[in-house]
Amino acid sequence: MENCVFCKIIKGEIPCYKIFENDKVLAFLDIANDFLGHTLVIPKKHCQNILDADEKSLQEVMSAVQKISKHYIQNCGFDGVNILNANNKSAEQSVFHLHFHIIPRRTDDKLIIFPVEKEKEFDLKDLQTKLKL
Amino acid sequence: MENCVFCKIIKGEIPCYKIFENDKVLAFLDIANDFLGHTLVIPKKHCQNILDADEKSLQEVMSAVQKISKHYIQNCGFDGVNILNANNKSAEQSVFHLHFHIIPRRTDDKLIIFPVEKEKEFDLKDLQTKLKL
Repeated sequence: MENCVFCKIIKGEIPCYKIFENDKVLAFLDIANDFLGHTLVIPKKHCQNILDADEKSLQEVMSAVQKISKHYIQNCGFDGVNILNANNKSAEQSVFHLHFHIIPRRTDDKLIIFPVEKEKEFDLKDLQTKLKL
Repeated sequence: MENCVFCKIIKGEIPCYKIFENDKVLAFLDIANDFLGHTLVIPKKHCQNILDADEKSLQEVMSAVQKISKHYIQNCGFDGVNILNANNKSAEQSVFHLHFHIIPRRTDDKLIIFPVEKEKEFDLKDLQTKLKL
């Protein structure tokens, strides 16, 4: 898609630090350079996020996420990985081309990736009724 | 698996606020009760995390994650969702049965789900050489 920075990376119009590529998926280091080994995994076929992704693209992306995660732990000295994804602006999505973040972890990295919030008093029974599918 | 709290939920030995269920997947509200609508999506077949999950289980879980995410936005008044997952203790995984968190978002929720770190001076070219698959 025109004016999509990730589509430009896929086409080679913008360089990237490529980690993995196949026919359907590309993975590269996040230039935010904030977490050691922070990697983005994207489908080559443009979609905005998980909400408009076709099932096959999502499967191919997740298969690559799994492959890279295993590689980081088995071969690259990491002990774990977090996988993060944002859908829509309200969820802090900034580039509107589906992407999954892999943040490799080490036992001694002292990071806190998971958001922490105090327990609330939401009525879970009531919420279940409203959200049930 | 014996002594796995999520396997006990699947078997009905521990109650849950169920959101969605099919042959392969169960989704329910996180009893942490920290974020409005915080939902966990798990495969019925036990695996520890993405590292030992079989491809089919991962696909089925992600398909449910997508379905529930769309439902929350299209039918339940949310504007976006974050999807989070932890693999291994070093990545802050606490229950060792594969699970994806869905955190539904609203434009005005004032949450910060994405971890924020300053830009570092990691040598991305060197990292690419070490991590490339």
